[in-house]
Amino acid sequence: MPEMRPPRPGELAIELPDQFDASLYFIGRIRTPWKTLAECPKSTSLRRDVEATVEVDPRYILALKDVQLLSHLILLYWLDRSARNLVLQAPSHVPEPRGTFALRSPVRPNPIGLAVVELVKVDGSKLTIRNIDCLDGTPLIDIKPYHASSDSVPDARRP
Amino acid sequence: MPEMRPPRPGELAIELPDQFDASLYFIGRIRTPWKTLAECPKSTSLRRDVEATVEVDPRYILALKDVQLLSHLILLYWLDRSARNLVLQAPSHVPEPRGTFALRSPVRPNPIGLAVVELVKVDGSKLTIRNIDCLDGTPLIDIKPYHASSDSVPDARRP
Repeated sequence: MPEMRPPRPGELAIELPDQFDASLYFIGRIRTPWKTLAECPKSTSLRRDVEATVEVDPRYILALKDVQLLSHLILLYWLDRSARNLVLQAPSHVPEPRGTFALRSPVRPNPIGLAVVELVKVDGSKLTIRNIDCLDGTPLIDIKPYHASSDSVPDARRP
Repeated sequence: MPEMRPPRPGELAIELPDQFDASLYFIGRIRTPWKTLAECPKSTSLRRDVEATVEVDPRYILALKDVQLLSHLILLYWLDRSARNLVLQAPSHVPEPRGTFALRSPVRPNPIGLAVVELVKVDGSKLTIRNIDCLDGTPLIDIKPYHASSDSVPDARRP
């Protein structure tokens, strides 16, 4: 079970449901240079320079057919060290506590991370990518093709 | 358990692992006008016109704080009627079978759907959105703010 960390000032924890509703397979691992949360890059521009590797479980190697034709992918991964019970969070970069669903924090009821990554190379069941910020060894749960027609909203607004 | 459908010509099924690795909570439901797969819109332009509703479980209502400040959200949802065991798929719109990870098909080892949606309105634990194509009643698993700086790649290429 992930750690249920005590809330910081302004944060609020809830009771989670007694039961789960669905289950996931880990389909591989993401290899990055970052072994601790403190080392993970905070800025997008920093992580864009660094190459990382996605090691897909050989069981799924045929599912990678044609992936090399894509310039960008969406990766979903499991943030297995994250608490799941906070609905209000007080990260240091925002002045007031914000709702979990208005944040990209790893702490959420289902701690799924999402990154739009540039695909550099495919070699068997290994993908070389750029633009990820997760810890080394993070479990992979999905790879999707990025479709600019539906996934790209250059003028989306946020606070 | 979702249906493990027999492969069509050119498709390939695999044996899935014996055990799951992680578990999800359903955090709400997506309400759309589409009650059967046959009714779901095939084209993005069609679904852009239609409003849908996200009903978040009241347990998580405080996690919606500040969501109204966002113009676009990323929704993750659970495609609970999808097979999970196909690595090559032959959808009617592609000439040759393609790898699952090069497709946005609902059939994948972890049947998580992803949509970038426009947020129209927040009313308590209900969100009105545009640009979703899933079945009525689809279980919701996450809501994330869309960040154009990292999520928007207008010139991404695909076959």
